[in-house]
Amino acid sequence: MKPYPKNLKLSQIGEDKLLQWLAHFFGETFQSRFHQILLGPGDDAAILQMLGSSKKLVITTDTLVENVHFRREWMDMEKVGKRAMAQNLSDLAAMGAKPLGCVISLVCSPEMTFGDFWDFAKGLKAYSLLYQTPLVGGNLSRGNLTMICGTFLGEPLKDRLIERKKDKIGDGIFVTGTLGESRAALLAQINGIKEIPKSLLERYSHPSPRLWESHKLLPFVHTMMDISDGLQKDLPRLLHHGAQIKLENLPVSPELKLFCKTMDWDPYEIAWIGGEDFELLFTAPTPLPENFQKSFFQEFKLPITQIGWVTQGGFEVPSFKEEKGFEHFQ
Amino acid sequence: MKPYPKNLKLSQIGEDKLLQWLAHFFGETFQSRFHQILLGPGDDAAILQMLGSSKKLVITTDTLVENVHFRREWMDMEKVGKRAMAQNLSDLAAMGAKPLGCVISLVCSPEMTFGDFWDFAKGLKAYSLLYQTPLVGGNLSRGNLTMICGTFLGEPLKDRLIERKKDKIGDGIFVTGTLGESRAALLAQINGIKEIPKSLLERYSHPSPRLWESHKLLPFVHTMMDISDGLQKDLPRLLHHGAQIKLENLPVSPELKLFCKTMDWDPYEIAWIGGEDFELLFTAPTPLPENFQKSFFQEFKLPITQIGWVTQGGFEVPSFKEEKGFEHFQ
Repeated sequence: MKPYPKNLKLSQIGEDKLLQWLAHFFGETFQSRFHQILLGPGDDAAILQMLGSSKKLVITTDTLVENVHFRREWMDMEKVGKRAMAQNLSDLAAMGAKPLGCVISLVCSPEMTFGDFWDFAKGLKAYSLLYQTPLVGGNLSRGNLTMICGTFLGEPLKDRLIERKKDKIGDGIFVTGTLGESRAALLAQINGIKEIPKSLLERYSHPSPRLWESHKLLPFVHTMMDISDGLQKDLPRLLHHGAQIKLENLPVSPELKLFCKTMDWDPYEIAWIGGEDFELLFTAPTPLPENFQKSFFQEFKLPITQIGWVTQGGFEVPSFKEEKGFEHFQ
Repeated sequence: MKPYPKNLKLSQIGEDKLLQWLAHFFGETFQSRFHQILLGPGDDAAILQMLGSSKKLVITTDTLVENVHFRREWMDMEKVGKRAMAQNLSDLAAMGAKPLGCVISLVCSPEMTFGDFWDFAKGLKAYSLLYQTPLVGGNLSRGNLTMICGTFLGEPLKDRLIERKKDKIGDGIFVTGTLGESRAALLAQINGIKEIPKSLLERYSHPSPRLWESHKLLPFVHTMMDISDGLQKDLPRLLHHGAQIKLENLPVSPELKLFCKTMDWDPYEIAWIGGEDFELLFTAPTPLPENFQKSFFQEFKLPITQIGWVTQGGFEVPSFKEEKGFEHFQ
């Protein structure tokens, strides 16, 4: 894989291609040299084999940047703390891993008040407890922007490793929960809309990683990831084969439908483009075991919806020209 | 430990006190609950016990922020990449750990050129290979400032865990290498000095983590850390007891002495205040085994120097009023 011209800007290349180039650039050195890397760059997390042990270790890292991933006027620091935990835990969920611990680096202004700092710590602690993920270390640095980088460790449950690109032709394509609410709340805030339904705002500012849910899915799934950049962008990242998606099957909540009606938006388009849903996207043989979806709903109050099928080739998916999922460098 | 008043600014509290407060705030929850944390916040790295295994895991994280830890006009992106590796590897060295792998999060402008991005990747790869630390994953986000957060995993060598605060009264206090060159280069650059000796600039822009050196010291040391914020700030963080330091014993290179003469600076003051030396600071019973310092020097071309003793109480250390070590929130 050739490097790009030196004077090209990162925005002209885009995140996915940069990550592919990086994986190649490092891969040629490391994939042969260090056999303890079971899964390297390109998935939700990496998996390492501990030397001289059968233990496997899952590691993932994610960063929240002020004015890119959140705005202080839309989200208090307690929610920023929870979100920093949630988006990393969501990556562990995608791997079917049990959290082991985490480290958090905070970059913030020396002008930040202790009250805000305390709120941030409260957010971290609340989700640490809720998801049984001890914070074992971290780092404080000053900077003009608030930025939080979390690195999370987990262990595969029962040694079952869940990766992307393991779909089989004929698999059903499924998602947990409902889609698009987080995007609708974000769009409405950007447009200065005052009356945004609380349930939509909550999905945006207070996401729940589907950790226990993913453990329940583990015996059935062929491949799985969490939807962070939106179904439209994430689906091709998940699948090795093609897909046929039925737009009208996308799980859209009544609250989103109602709000979209007042805004004159298409709720299915919002759900398809999405972003920061933090739901699980997976493929599994159909049908799922009898009553599985029902008992899953009873346990987690969360639906599982089949949105399409894995096909031999090509993507028969909805197309909207207006917008795209979240692109980090555009 | 009480929280500070809510309207106090972080700069009024300072990094050490904030970290102490955080350790307390999280400690009450986690230190009893998760027995797999062998060493939590407050040291160079945390140590986890893998569940159902005798394996121990060392984890450390550190962040480089543009215009705080480096300036683009003083350091090309290849050096930034190397430094991001070096400062984390230095923390693993402080724990006597062998690197297992790392993840790197890069926040940068979409306007960054691919050439700079490539240089950064080259820096990471060069130190990955040199220090046998595979890069197993990472994250790219956009932001106005360049920022690099690294999280590194290691395994304790021969299960020997090196912590701070394990010094014994009567121990000698030792450092590897020479001190102050990095600080002198930084001060000179801030002051716009054009003719800075290359060896000083190299120490600033191209630090070497003392990884293999630390493994050699392992059998002898009682307690160890790496000097990142300067000897003056780091020494009290290392010791449980007091210290007597002989200023004239601080290892100062001939190049630093000569440069300080032209600048009318005191080289011993520069060495004492320091910052980003990335040398090892440790205590050990004296005398060290016969010929140890000599064979260490032969192997690594690096001196070991005794700079003082651990005492019953109090710090008999040099005092200069002008300056302090690096403080993240002031």
